Amino acid sequence: MYKATIFVTLKESVLDPQGVAVKGSLHSLGYAEVKDVRIGKRIEVLIESDNRRKAEQQVREICEKVLSNPVIEQFRFELEEVA
Amino acid sequence: MYKATIFVTLKESVLDPQGVAVKGSLHSLGYAEVKDVRIGKRIEVLIESDNRRKAEQQVREICEKVLSNPVIEQFRFELEEVA
Repeated sequence: MYKATIFVTLKESVLDPQGVAVKGSLHSLGYAEVKDVRIGKRIEVLIESDNRRKAEQQVREICEKVLSNPVIEQFRFELEEVA
Repeated sequence: MYKATIFVTLKESVLDPQGVAVKGSLHSLGYAEVKDVRIGKRIEVLIESDNRRKAEQQVREICEKVLSNPVIEQFRFELEEVA
């Protein structure tokens, strides 16, 4: 069994309206020191497999096809064997 | 300037309907090996500060008050000095 921890984030060049909104809220609450907020996803996927290479390939496919939008997002992941 | 990378995740005991939905989609697409999916947030916050201790305290406050719902979520963060 493998656990993939996947991070999906907006590309640097893409505006993050959710982050802008959170920054605005923080400023209203008095946190003027907050200069930027960017919001992404952290996804854990458990994969039943005893082959690391195959599990890695599957996670990559899942990220490309389902979990990220390649036009505006990028992803990276860590793979860890679990009991 | 400090960059905080914050991870907000649902507590272990809390059902993650978004994760369940993604797992279902992956199964429909033929990824039967996927045993579990949990979805959380990865948030980057830039803080204008030259005092690490103070920046850390602020990030903790922001996480508790704004970025997480303490009833169902937990958070952790890493703080890194940036130029």
